[in-house]
Amino acid sequence: MIEALAVAIIAVVGAGMMGSALCVPLADRGHTVRLVGTPLDDALVAALRATGRHPALGVELPSSVQFHDVGELERALEDADAIALGVSSAGVGWAARALSPALQQRPRPVLMVSKGLTLADGGLRVLTDVFDARVAGGSASVSVCGPCIAGELARRVPTMAVLTSRDPELARRFAGWLETPYYRPRVTEDVVGVQVSAALKNAYALGVALAAGLHERAGGERGSVAMHNYEAAVFAQAICEMQSWVARLGGDVKTVVGLAGTGDLNVTCNGGRTGRFGVLLGRGHTARQARELMAGVTLECLEVLAVLERFMSVYGSPAEVPLLLHLIELALHDAPLAMPFEGFFLA
Amino acid sequence: MIEALAVAIIAVVGAGMMGSALCVPLADRGHTVRLVGTPLDDALVAALRATGRHPALGVELPSSVQFHDVGELERALEDADAIALGVSSAGVGWAARALSPALQQRPRPVLMVSKGLTLADGGLRVLTDVFDARVAGGSASVSVCGPCIAGELARRVPTMAVLTSRDPELARRFAGWLETPYYRPRVTEDVVGVQVSAALKNAYALGVALAAGLHERAGGERGSVAMHNYEAAVFAQAICEMQSWVARLGGDVKTVVGLAGTGDLNVTCNGGRTGRFGVLLGRGHTARQARELMAGVTLECLEVLAVLERFMSVYGSPAEVPLLLHLIELALHDAPLAMPFEGFFLA
Repeated sequence: MIEALAVAIIAVVGAGMMGSALCVPLADRGHTVRLVGTPLDDALVAALRATGRHPALGVELPSSVQFHDVGELERALEDADAIALGVSSAGVGWAARALSPALQQRPRPVLMVSKGLTLADGGLRVLTDVFDARVAGGSASVSVCGPCIAGELARRVPTMAVLTSRDPELARRFAGWLETPYYRPRVTEDVVGVQVSAALKNAYALGVALAAGLHERAGGERGSVAMHNYEAAVFAQAICEMQSWVARLGGDVKTVVGLAGTGDLNVTCNGGRTGRFGVLLGRGHTARQARELMAGVTLECLEVLAVLERFMSVYGSPAEVPLLLHLIELALHDAPLAMPFEGFFLA
Repeated sequence: MIEALAVAIIAVVGAGMMGSALCVPLADRGHTVRLVGTPLDDALVAALRATGRHPALGVELPSSVQFHDVGELERALEDADAIALGVSSAGVGWAARALSPALQQRPRPVLMVSKGLTLADGGLRVLTDVFDARVAGGSASVSVCGPCIAGELARRVPTMAVLTSRDPELARRFAGWLETPYYRPRVTEDVVGVQVSAALKNAYALGVALAAGLHERAGGERGSVAMHNYEAAVFAQAICEMQSWVARLGGDVKTVVGLAGTGDLNVTCNGGRTGRFGVLLGRGHTARQARELMAGVTLECLEVLAVLERFMSVYGSPAEVPLLLHLIELALHDAPLAMPFEGFFLA
């Protein structure tokens, strides 16, 4: 039994946008916060040490946050009460190896910013399960999901989140550590529903963004008469299809109704790379052209679509997901945009 | 048994925006369409006769649509196979009286553009039930709901809708008459869930719009870092609260997940009067000031909030609807904006 502390020493590993943003509520709550870079974060850590300001977030972090490069990882973890892991899903393998010695020595609660679906053991798995299996000595990790743009949390914009874990008590502990007047986490036991929603929202936000691009292509300006009817029908169909996937992957369809589903889809449509990519496709660019225009940008929606295409025959119900089938053709196979409204809301 | 016709004579009564917009798919499907004004529509009908263009929609209606003023109502209805009622909820009483003679003479399917909740017999009733009880000789009416900005439908923007009726066969018949490649109605038997969602979305869209106003007030510009986290949490909470109301009023919570709930809330947030009112409140205006700035504009959200406040003790579950309780204080009682996130997602 790990002791529940009102104020703790928390090591945030990974100095990217979301890990660094989480330092803000943690520091505001009075915890000792150590932000430790990964091997890819040396320049970020140097900038933070020099200025206190996070270059990508464009925000000064609270002055109490301590900055460490990866060489100081072992020391930073030594007496930490908990670890928050702010690496991308591609960095989870490194993180499992890097954290194993410390967690083997003394188990500590681990919060993961990366979440979603991944390929493991020949099937689709939620990322926290894969991490839990790989890390030595670890207990169940906690995943933080829900509608959160890191740059807004770092500016203390009111934000809600969902924490989920195979060990709900650990999720509740992190919720207690994180809660501030502007950051309100909620705990749910539906590990699968939350992380499947988190993965799918990237794919479906691409679909919702198409309408804005179509409207621009038609020469329209922002306004109350645009392609909002189109966008709304796609949004609602996306929520229904997310429920179909969550059900087939063993989660609770009710999760899709809340922060992790409708909330996260809403926020993902309002900002970021997936939305820009969808607008380009709506304007009439092929996927190939749009990828060239966004060269160097990681498009999570394409990764998710590729995974879903591969496992459609195992987990998918084609009749229930006509929108997703078209997004796969559109974004992965350069098909022209032809939204299959005729198949919506029939399942 | 009313005969199902592939092509019919359809009288659209009420030349407002939504009634007139419905003439577009009806005419495109080859029906004989008669657009008949109410006693308030004489100027609209005169303009349509002179130019073919609808002044409020800003669109020329299909040349096959015939225009009639209210004096020609009886003749226009005489051999009509069906009636589409394009009046506001305030006009439903007039419409019941005006249509009764024709419907008594020969029952015809009636589609109603106005929908939602209304006070009748000392309680909350869905509008189609009230109409059905008041009109002489009528069968069950059909309500058309879902995410549809009239100005977009009139421009043939792809649009989906939900038709519902106590007589689902009539809803299916209207769906068949209306369906075109750009307008795809779906039929559901959840009369209560659909119309409760249609009413509530006006109230909740006000809440979702607050974030944009708060962001403007803070000097922010449109962009991916704004108050999107705030907006997304309110959106998701709104969907959950709409489910609470629908359940307590006897509808199916699943309806809220689809076009009538998430879809219609999405589209209502993207355009229109409720959104403008919410932005003004977010900017820091009191409700009184915002109403003055929008003098002359009918704000359906205020009517819905007043009805819900009155019936909170009968149908509401205060612990499940903290957002709505605050919207009532904010919009009806000039309370300052203080979003009760601390109460969200606890029920």
